[in-house]
Parts: sequence; structure tokens; C-alpha cells
Amino acid sequence: MFCTPLRLSTFTDNFAAALQERLHWSRALDADIDARVAQILADVRQRGDAAVLEYTARFDALHVDSMAGLVLGAEDFAQAFHLLPEAQRNALQFAAHRVRTYHEAQRTACGGDWSYHDEEGTLLGQKVTPLDRVGVYVPGGKAAYPSSVLMNAIPAHVAGVAEIVMMVPTPGGERNPLVLAAAHVAGVTKAFTVGGAQAVAALAFGTASIPKVDKITGPGNAYVASAKRQVFGIVGIDMIAGPSEILVLADGSTPPDWVAMDLFSQAEHDELAQSILLCPDVGYIDLVASAIDRMLPDMPRRDIIAKSLTDRGVLIHTRSMEEACAISNTIAPEHLEVSSRDPHRWEPLLRHAGAIFLGAYTSESLGDYCAGPNHVLPTSTTARFSSPLGVYDFQKRSSLIEVSAQGARTLGHVAYILAQGEGLEAHARSAQMRCHALE
Amino acid sequence: MFCTPLRLSTFTDNFAAALQERLHWSRALDADIDARVAQILADVRQRGDAAVLEYTARFDALHVDSMAGLVLGAEDFAQAFHLLPEAQRNALQFAAHRVRTYHEAQRTACGGDWSYHDEEGTLLGQKVTPLDRVGVYVPGGKAAYPSSVLMNAIPAHVAGVAEIVMMVPTPGGERNPLVLAAAHVAGVTKAFTVGGAQAVAALAFGTASIPKVDKITGPGNAYVASAKRQVFGIVGIDMIAGPSEILVLADGSTPPDWVAMDLFSQAEHDELAQSILLCPDVGYIDLVASAIDRMLPDMPRRDIIAKSLTDRGVLIHTRSMEEACAISNTIAPEHLEVSSRDPHRWEPLLRHAGAIFLGAYTSESLGDYCAGPNHVLPTSTTARFSSPLGVYDFQKRSSLIEVSAQGARTLGHVAYILAQGEGLEAHARSAQMRCHALE
Repeated sequence: MFCTPLRLSTFTDNFAAALQERLHWSRALDADIDARVAQILADVRQRGDAAVLEYTARFDALHVDSMAGLVLGAEDFAQAFHLLPEAQRNALQFAAHRVRTYHEAQRTACGGDWSYHDEEGTLLGQKVTPLDRVGVYVPGGKAAYPSSVLMNAIPAHVAGVAEIVMMVPTPGGERNPLVLAAAHVAGVTKAFTVGGAQAVAALAFGTASIPKVDKITGPGNAYVASAKRQVFGIVGIDMIAGPSEILVLADGSTPPDWVAMDLFSQAEHDELAQSILLCPDVGYIDLVASAIDRMLPDMPRRDIIAKSLTDRGVLIHTRSMEEACAISNTIAPEHLEVSSRDPHRWEPLLRHAGAIFLGAYTSESLGDYCAGPNHVLPTSTTARFSSPLGVYDFQKRSSLIEVSAQGARTLGHVAYILAQGEGLEAHARSAQMRCHALE
Repeated sequence: MFCTPLRLSTFTDNFAAALQERLHWSRALDADIDARVAQILADVRQRGDAAVLEYTARFDALHVDSMAGLVLGAEDFAQAFHLLPEAQRNALQFAAHRVRTYHEAQRTACGGDWSYHDEEGTLLGQKVTPLDRVGVYVPGGKAAYPSSVLMNAIPAHVAGVAEIVMMVPTPGGERNPLVLAAAHVAGVTKAFTVGGAQAVAALAFGTASIPKVDKITGPGNAYVASAKRQVFGIVGIDMIAGPSEILVLADGSTPPDWVAMDLFSQAEHDELAQSILLCPDVGYIDLVASAIDRMLPDMPRRDIIAKSLTDRGVLIHTRSMEEACAISNTIAPEHLEVSSRDPHRWEPLLRHAGAIFLGAYTSESLGDYCAGPNHVLPTSTTARFSSPLGVYDFQKRSSLIEVSAQGARTLGHVAYILAQGEGLEAHARSAQMRCHALE
């Protein structure tokens, strides 16, 4: 078995165009999926639980008489947790603790309520409040990831969200014990074994049994993604993720096997996943390529890895680490490993990335599971304008203003002029009326 | 001229249903607009400037030979500013200063880079960076609001965005001097006199003359809203605003004329705008209703106000201020005036609102123009999960992780177990490889 990631060099004339071609990915806009999802959304909105039961029977082959057959609560989660092998139980708990500690630090760092008084005694500020209720979608079946439960539910819990509702399909009724155990350690309130667009619809509109939430987060297939996009605005959503990406900036000091395995770890997710290596040392790139060839046959998911690396992978020879950093900024990768002896020299040059992994020891996989930071990260260049999922996604702010009698005169005069300039006379008069103190 | 806002009372049985009916508003989903916008987006993406020129000629009757005829720069903004009457110039500058001061305080309060080391020496944190380039859409024609320029561009400028590109249609070539002057005081880099879906397309995809941006903010008509929704994910967007709303919680201590004028100030925006009064004193509600009847005929926009109040306005008699606060939370209004002698008694009870205006002096109109906080606020119950436009909308975060040799062993062991539980062997091995220190 061989796979041959594309080799590029910044020394060649057509580099920029060749890289762009390699990076190009466009979301398959499937009008058929959108239309079918729109129908499911409308149906669940209108018929509620009855529609949810029907779709769950049809799509997940899970036949139950009533919604009571689709609910899981704290006791189910606890039971799943206690039935796990000890090593898994400890690992989950360790990971949850790390993720919680990080997000608690984030909550503190991001600040809470603030206010100040201006020189006329007018109060200005904001208050920060958690969302009341959120929904976390967790894929079932093949790609059931307990780590997703931790990464979505813990920041919500740390933010102070009172109710966290999990939706997890269980095709054929088969429940994933690790997912339920993760719900236990992550503070999920309750779960419904419902998936697909019908799960998103139920969370967005509410049914007799499933409560309407304020925001829906979590990954899903094309139907789930389309449903989230369609309900965006009725509820909040996190993001519509594209294929996962890793970019490794290497100065040649890390064992080549480590870097090759990191590229694999991205590629094994999915054939569309993208693994990129940038390095000024062409000899080192050769070593990584050899490691890829040597280690690939032994990987359980070698077919997916080979296709991902061959179709979308790229090993880039750069003039320098500085140039590699500049190229990385144009790519704005989801995961960015700085596999260097001197990662702090390069970090300040890196402007756009979801998560930055510094130094040879910091494999992306540690971040995926248990380092602490969130593994829900912006993909497909969206790190240019968006952030990792965080506590801030489960809070919102309200502005606070309390104008003093003196301030009402000063501000009223200015607002009057500007409102008249915009032709909004009621605004102008409403401001003007306050120019004279009460009593 | 009369207008008769609906009167409701929480003492009646059908109150909840009657209120829901009054609040109901659904975005007109216009498949025809979406399809036409999709075509414009595709066309601008493919043909760039040529398409922009054609659409600008067709939709705005603005015929120019080249893109040079559609660009405005710092000198144009400065000129517009210096030609304004002194009162307007001072008012704009005053407002910009207040808005800037508030958003600078917000930048500080929201926190910057942070990090900590765990007990094994592993570094965990986030860095905060501004977006590189943003686009601000400013409507032209009838509803040209210079205050929107301040409210969109200043937070971006305070966040450290290097380039702020304004799009403002000038139908028939007519430029609004206040809008250009606002661009001068707000720190806009340059502007194009392009509007509609073609402006959004140019910002999202870039053309030879118009730079691709990372995020697009600002209000617009149904075409602009549809275009923003369609490019969401390719670039960031702020939000898709619904009709504007005000909710006044009154304890009866504010002059009724003031409250009536505040309800007008919302209603004059647009026939779909919604004005709501909640008050435990039915006699006071009568006084506000009389003030409405008395003052309405003298309002320049009385027809819009009358239609808005009659179709969507509601005066609600509640049992108490506590009950009024609870109802306000279910409505999650964009603007919430606490017109009370004791506003700090009620503020802690208010969980969901875009902006909270405390006390009789704090009219919403002061907030619209010059108090300092942003006037771009979540509408249509979205204050349950979203926030005022702010500095945080023009920044993004990147996680930072640097695992120590000791941490690599501890974390690697846990990641190995969890990755195997998810069937991701390359993740497991990538973690495992780091369990042994280098050299």
C-alpha cells in the first residue's frame, strides 16, 4: 500500500496556484437534502412528538410506542458510567476534569459583568448571563464520539446553562455506553435517542416531550448540518463544520514518525480531511514521506488515510520557517502544530488558526481528548473570523444604560440633532423631552 | 387620527395565548428573492467587477465606466465631514467619542490573551486577535442612517481591524453627506458606492477592485439579508435582524408623554416594529393611551406609527412589576426600558434583553445615537442567545497548548484509551509516541 501526498515547493513559479487548487473544497450544496430537511422541519414543527416517533422508526429502525421510550436521564448516564471498564472510566473522568478546568479559566478570563460611570453620573456597561437551555447533538452509529459530548456539554455547564439536552440517535436501539457515560461526567441533564433533522427540529421548535432550546451545538451528517443551517436565527447554532484539517509547521527537529502519525490522525477521520506539512528542510520532508509509506500498512483505517493523503494531503518545501508561517496564515488551519524546538519564536507570527499546538510533545490528538481546550474548532479558513467553541458561546450579553439627569441634557441635545438628520422625529422628541429634569 | 394599540391584562384567562398571537411574526421566506440573490452571488463571484458595474447601473441607476467611479476614500469622507453644518459635525464627533469610549471599556472588560501552566508544566490558554478586514453594509436611499456607520465601524476599529470597507448604495449617484462624514469619524478605510446583493457578493468573494473581507456586518433590505444568509460560512456575518422592538416596564412614575413618545420612537421605524408597555397601574396605562392619541397627529411619520401601534402594539396591565419582569423575559425584547423610580430593583430580574435602559431619563433614543453602547441588538427573541454587536464580534480566539514532557506521558495515556474507545488508532498512536521523552 502506498500513498503519495502531493509535493509542492515555494521555489516554483506556480506554487500559489497549485496550493490554492489543493486547498479548494466546496461544500456540496445539495438542494435535494435541503428540501427533504425542510419537510422534516415543518412536519416536526406541526405534529411534534408524533412526527419524531415516526422519523425515528423510519430512519433509525427504532420502534417505540411513546416518547417515554426515547428518553434517557441521569440514572441511565450514571449506570453506563459505572459499567465501564475502570481504565475507560478513569480516562473519561480525567479528560472531563481537564476540560472543565480549562473552561473555568476561560470563563474567568473572558470577564463577567462590567460597568462604569461617566463624568455626568451616567452608568454604562453590560451584564453577562448564561443561556437557559441548550441542545447538544451527538452523532450515533459509526462515528459516535464520547469526546464530543465532553467538548460540547462542559463549556455549557461551566457557563451556567441550567438545562443541557442531548440528542443522540441509537440506530436499531443500540446505545453507545461511552457516549452515555460521557453525558454523566459532562453534566448533561437528559437525552433523547433521536437523531437527524428530526432531532434538530425538535430542539428548535420544541414538542410536548422535547423542550425548545436556545442554541444547538454539535456535529452531524449532511442532514443535521442542513437542519442547523435552516433553523439558524430561530435558535442559535455553533457552526457548520467542514472537513477537518491539520497543518504541521516543522523545523526538522521532531522525529519524522511523530509528524507522519499526526498527519495520519487527521486523515483517518474522513477522506476529505486535509493534512498539510510545511518545512524548510527538504531532507526532513523525505523522511516524513518514508515514515508515511512505512507506517501506513499497519493502520486499521489505512484506506481512508491513503485516500485522504493522496487526494488532499500536501507536503510543502518552503524557503524558511517565516515563509511557512505566512503560508499558514493564508490557510487559517483548524489545527496548527508548530513542531519546532523553538515554537515561541513562531507563535507570534501565526494570526489565524483554531488551535495552535506548540512543540514536539503537543500532538493534536492530546488536544482532541484531554489537554483541556475545546476540540470544536473553526474549519475551512473560518478561523479567520471565528473561534473555538467556548464558554462564551453559551453566554450572552445585555447592554446596561442609566442616564443621569445631567446626562439626559447633554446626550438629549446630541441625539436630537442626529435623529433629525435621519428624519426620525419621534426619536428626536423622545430625547428632547428628557432635557428638562423631573420636578 | 387615532390608533388603538391592543389592550391586554394578565388577569384574564386567555392572556398568554393573546400575547403569543400578538408577538407572532414570521420572516417572510421569499424563495423568489433567494433565487434572484443566488444568481447575483454566482455572477459576481464569476465575473467580478464587470458584474458589479452592471448591477449598480441596473439597480441604482448609477452609470460609470469603471470601478474608479464607485470608490470613495479618506479624503472624500473628510470633505463631507468638513462641509457639514457645525451642529451636525459636533454631534457626530460627540457620538463617535462616546461610542468609542464605551467599546474601549468593552475591549478591556472582555479580556485579551490568557494562559496558565498546569502542575506538570503544560501551557494552556488562548490568544485573541482582530479580524484582518471587515465589510460594513450601510443602506442608502430612504433609510440612510449615519448612526449605523458609527455603530458598525467603531467596534471594528477598536478591536484593531486593519481595514474597514464600507458598502453604501447611492441611488442615482446621490450621496448622503452624513453617512460619509460618519465614515470619517468612525475610521472607515474606504467605501464603494455599491449596494444590494452585489455588494455582499463582492465583499464575500472579492473582485479585482473590492477586497474579500472576513466578516460582513450591517443592516439591509430583504436582498441584502438573503445575500448575507447565503454567504454565511464563507465569511462571518453579524445577524439577520427582524423588526425592531421596544418593551417598556413602567411603574407609573414616568411622565406618560415620555413613555408614549418612546413607543412612537420604535413604531416610526417601520410598520412591523413592535411597541409594548407592561404596567401594574391601569390608570397609568390610560394616561399613556391618551398621550398617544393626543401626540400622534403632530408626528411627521404618524401613518407608520399608527399602523405599527394598531397592528403590533400592545399595552398590558399586569398584577405586579415582578410579573411584568417575568413576561419581559419570555419576550426577550431588543430594547427594554425600565421606566421606574427604582430600576435597580427590577434589573436583576431581567434575564433576556438586547439593551436595558434604566430609569425615566434613559430613553431608547439616547442609546440609539450617543450614550455609547451599540444600537445593533438582537431582535425577535434572539436576545435569548445572542448579544449586542461588540468588539468581540471583530476578534477571534486561537487556543494555545504546549504540553511538557511529563504532561505528554500523563495526557498520552488518557488520550490513548479514549482514542481507542472511538476506534481512532492513529490518534491513539500519535499520543502514545509522545509518552517517551525525547533524547
